[in-house]
Amino acid sequence: MFGRFVPREGKFFEFFHESADLSVEAARQLKQLLTDLPHGESRARAIKDIEHKADQVTHRAIELLHKTFITPLDREDIHELITEMDNIIDFIEAASQRLYLYGVRQSTPELEGLADICLQSVEYVRKAVHGLNDLKNIKEIRKNCVEINRLENEADHILRAGVAKLFRDETDTRQLIKLKEIYELLEVVTDRCEDVANIIEGITIEYS
Amino acid sequence: MFGRFVPREGKFFEFFHESADLSVEAARQLKQLLTDLPHGESRARAIKDIEHKADQVTHRAIELLHKTFITPLDREDIHELITEMDNIIDFIEAASQRLYLYGVRQSTPELEGLADICLQSVEYVRKAVHGLNDLKNIKEIRKNCVEINRLENEADHILRAGVAKLFRDETDTRQLIKLKEIYELLEVVTDRCEDVANIIEGITIEYS
Amino acid sequence: MFGRFVPREGKFFEFFHESADLSVEAARQLKQLLTDLPHGESRARAIKDIEHKADQVTHRAIELLHKTFITPLDREDIHELITEMDNIIDFIEAASQRLYLYGVRQSTPELEGLADICLQSVEYVRKAVHGLNDLKNIKEIRKNCVEINRLENEADHILRAGVAKLFRDETDTRQLIKLKEIYELLEVVTDRCEDVANIIEGITIEYS
Repeated sequence: MFGRFVPREGKFFEFFHESADLSVEAARQLKQLLTDLPHGESRARAIKDIEHKADQVTHRAIELLHKTFITPLDREDIHELITEMDNIIDFIEAASQRLYLYGVRQSTPELEGLADICLQSVEYVRKAVHGLNDLKNIKEIRKNCVEINRLENEADHILRAGVAKLFRDETDTRQLIKLKEIYELLEVVTDRCEDVANIIEGITIEYS
Repeated sequence: MFGRFVPREGKFFEFFHESADLSVEAARQLKQLLTDLPHGESRARAIKDIEHKADQVTHRAIELLHKTFITPLDREDIHELITEMDNIIDFIEAASQRLYLYGVRQSTPELEGLADICLQSVEYVRKAVHGLNDLKNIKEIRKNCVEINRLENEADHILRAGVAKLFRDETDTRQLIKLKEIYELLEVVTDRCEDVANIIEGITIEYS
Repeated sequence: MFGRFVPREGKFFEFFHESADLSVEAARQLKQLLTDLPHGESRARAIKDIEHKADQVTHRAIELLHKTFITPLDREDIHELITEMDNIIDFIEAASQRLYLYGVRQSTPELEGLADICLQSVEYVRKAVHGLNDLKNIKEIRKNCVEINRLENEADHILRAGVAKLFRDETDTRQLIKLKEIYELLEVVTDRCEDVANIIEGITIEYS
């Protein structure tokens, strides 16, 4: 296949950027969703659409990987990175669907705090991923990774304190179970961001 | 050690096939278990036995890896693949044990739908793994991987809608917690199948 | 940078040992915590401090990786190993915090059994990690990995039977949810130990 010999290295970075942009967009929609839970369905559907688009980006990136001879980064790193970035959006979508499907009618400070951190975290992922383009500024990339780790700790703290609060104050056990699961899913978003940060950190180590 | 110099490449594929066959067998038994929950104990024990056999296959594959000089695929890929295939069976077993241990007396459409998807998914894993034997038909292998991804999405959908239904209709909160956990474990079976599909996809990328 | 050319290979092993020592210390503190739950806060804080120290060890190991030219093991293996070892402590800390935050006042045989297994498991991790120093005694290393797998199975068994018991005997549904989560977190500690064992096993395969 001719395409195999044409250098298309830059295309991979475009896919990384597209995926990162979509996760930022999903995290923004999630914050909006929390401000208008009674009309959550359409917002949740919008996030589902974003997640679907991200799947296609991932799919096309992997297709390209199969057709490309010379890749700008290790083949396996590209595969792992695009797959793990996809996971971030999957969990944003998972949390947003549950808000709607479980009929959560009212937001909580914990939901808002976690959604805020998710947005910040994917924004740092986007910055870190952009840094991969030239790998010249490894310090900058790693600074973003440190921030992602910090935000994961913060999310973890909100989750723990928030669930403890539910055990103390939420008298409806079903509501407690619902919110606990959604808090956990939002915290997993920051875990997945940390996984991506670890992969990026690993790439900078190989190329440093 | 003499054995180290004798080519035994094919043996690794036999281990992959054995592990895949065992996961298909476990998924079939799980479907049977759902048709006769009051006598679940013996069926759950049969699945435990299958899981134990799979552990031994994994163990022997890793032993062989230590003794083999030239491997048919990257050493680490073999290690990762056999380990992750083992995880599939672990979660089938985990779900089946809970059905019995938690005294679930009656199946639900969601349990049956998820068990169906688990069986389909491990059947595609088996096909994909068989394709690794010669790596000539990469398109075919990847078609199986696409199906595994599709089934994971389907399982996720059943899980979400099923848990939302439990929150609406299941008045016994303990029963809700039990079924929610088992639905989640069955969905994880399809996640683990997807992990295996990702590894296989990664291998086809390296060798394409 | 001059440091880059000075061989500091041994330093990586020191970091592995430090991290392993900290996880053993954390697991010991967890056992203590269970004997005095009403005063859990200070003990949980001590475990938090250990976790924080482990984070710094991980961070310094990754820094060194960036500055070191010749590494005693594959760069990526070092990165993955130190990161996964850190995860072990994270889950010990997560479980201990919940005991305190959820106001668990009384231990159970399952909590004690699981904490015991966690301690044994991290002790085997420490032994396995020490074996990496010279990789001469691969049989010994792998024996430790086998023990870690065995302990993971044992923890899984306690978890399942323990949760089934909660469903039968614990009349307070919130208490059931709390203990179920903490049992699960302690079982995850042994899963993370198994992940580390798998990485170590992978390293011995590469170097055998």
